[in-house]
Amino acid sequence: MPAKFIFTNVSGSFVFTENHKAVEEILFKDIEQYKEKGIYEDKLRQKHGNLAKPEDNDLYNVLLFFKNRKYFSEFRKKNLDLTKKSIKESVNNDLFIVQTAGTIGEIDRTLNLLTKRLREWYSLYNPEASDKIKDHEKFSSLIAKKSKKQLLDEFDIDEKDSIGSDLKEKDISAILLLAAQINSFYVLRAHYETYLKELEKEACPNLATVAGITIAAKLIEHTGSLKRLAEMPASTLQVLGAEKALFRHMRNNRNRPPKYGMLHEHQLIQKSKKEMHGKVARALADKASIAARVDYFKGKFIGDKLKKELADKFKIEY
Amino acid sequence: MPAKFIFTNVSGSFVFTENHKAVEEILFKDIEQYKEKGIYEDKLRQKHGNLAKPEDNDLYNVLLFFKNRKYFSEFRKKNLDLTKKSIKESVNNDLFIVQTAGTIGEIDRTLNLLTKRLREWYSLYNPEASDKIKDHEKFSSLIAKKSKKQLLDEFDIDEKDSIGSDLKEKDISAILLLAAQINSFYVLRAHYETYLKELEKEACPNLATVAGITIAAKLIEHTGSLKRLAEMPASTLQVLGAEKALFRHMRNNRNRPPKYGMLHEHQLIQKSKKEMHGKVARALADKASIAARVDYFKGKFIGDKLKKELADKFKIEY
Repeated sequence: MPAKFIFTNVSGSFVFTENHKAVEEILFKDIEQYKEKGIYEDKLRQKHGNLAKPEDNDLYNVLLFFKNRKYFSEFRKKNLDLTKKSIKESVNNDLFIVQTAGTIGEIDRTLNLLTKRLREWYSLYNPEASDKIKDHEKFSSLIAKKSKKQLLDEFDIDEKDSIGSDLKEKDISAILLLAAQINSFYVLRAHYETYLKELEKEACPNLATVAGITIAAKLIEHTGSLKRLAEMPASTLQVLGAEKALFRHMRNNRNRPPKYGMLHEHQLIQKSKKEMHGKVARALADKASIAARVDYFKGKFIGDKLKKELADKFKIEY
Repeated sequence: MPAKFIFTNVSGSFVFTENHKAVEEILFKDIEQYKEKGIYEDKLRQKHGNLAKPEDNDLYNVLLFFKNRKYFSEFRKKNLDLTKKSIKESVNNDLFIVQTAGTIGEIDRTLNLLTKRLREWYSLYNPEASDKIKDHEKFSSLIAKKSKKQLLDEFDIDEKDSIGSDLKEKDISAILLLAAQINSFYVLRAHYETYLKELEKEACPNLATVAGITIAAKLIEHTGSLKRLAEMPASTLQVLGAEKALFRHMRNNRNRPPKYGMLHEHQLIQKSKKEMHGKVARALADKASIAARVDYFKGKFIGDKLKKELADKFKIEY
């Protein structure tokens, strides 16, 4: 009976007759060989003449052949290898962007929580300092470096006028350990900012230029990957992060749709007049969407051009 | 006209006639002198015979005398000094317990957040490790110390069978920096545990013995001070931390009252049978309440005795 079908899977390339009997097989040794399956299929085609791919009922019968234990365990093992390899290769720069941006967000939440605690605790000792130094980062770095007397001198307060208590050495050092921990968190945060910049330079230089490092990272983190961001309409990108407001608008028609989500923090919007916010957000989302697509398809760098177009259109430098 | 009234405030001690004219005054130089006001009042009493404290209408008229600018600015300044001094002296060990217990709680929340992130991030590189090492602290300490190969060897996994990707050096080091930060957080937490123990040894040795270091700290943190805890009925102490359940019970009578709040984690309850939980919690709250009162009034150490009574009553070692 003449050969009629050809069928290839990770185990090998097989030739079947009309009655679904295997008449020839080339078994693959490894995944590399499977990836070059075209070569082996051509070889079989040259030998057996015109071979079709099985369809419908024929496909069903051909697949039954692989229930044979001999093929099945091999097939399972090869498939696992293939999956492992795909998982291994699926890790790319956007995943690092997602993780780094997420970590920075969590560090910010942590810093907020711990600095509030530090201020409360340290105020038992030196409440004047917490009152005078409003900036969180400056506060924890200054109290770690300077003594109570040095700080009070800077504010022209006599140490004996302070309403803080004179604590024992070990009580002060417990507080300053927390300050040191907070300071090391700030150092880590700065490191991750730099790392994020490097990642974006490789993975999404256009988006990073148009939207800025932080917003670009948040957009990718929110959608999960550059791919999903690139596949999104610009109008969706525009309201990413404002899902709650968007669905509130869609449920009842009383609320207006949101103008922007994460783009809100962008310089272009911050620097424009309130009545222009909607227009600016739309234009910005358009350009960011173009940038994300160019980045995803590894196009050349047009971020500068996109950015200039936006700046010229609204006459705002950013 | 004979002297009739004596009146003392932070400015000094004053003698008034029936018509509220000042006939003699001893002005105080500082707060220390005010604290020994008894001496000065006695001196004036010896000189002027029987002097009464002004009341009602007389008091009102005597106070009018102090509206005089000469006394008023002095009075204000001295009062501020007195307040400052009181604030300074109000700082005591329970406040450190409140702050330290609060900080440990916040460190725990943060560690949870950051370790989840670390596991997710590190799993891009070596998912097998996160899978095999369930304990958070052990996980972050091991991955900081050992290479991927070393870890996989321990689990008898061949490195090339791992489904983790081969990351670049700088991507790995970004992850390990987070692990290092988490590890230093664990060290800080351990330090605060030791510090808390020392604080409680001084401030509430009885409560710490009966309830345990952690629960004692939580009880004081929850109420705000040892004083408030000591003033509380034992039945309130028993359900501290279960306010939600308690008020749910009080609003509608369908829900049962809670058996315990923070005491739930106590060894005595953990080790007893479920049907005994209510009884045990009541007895434990009684003893803890006694312990808190003895601690607040600086009584002697009876923690051991209270603890033994509980252990004997329920035949549970803890």
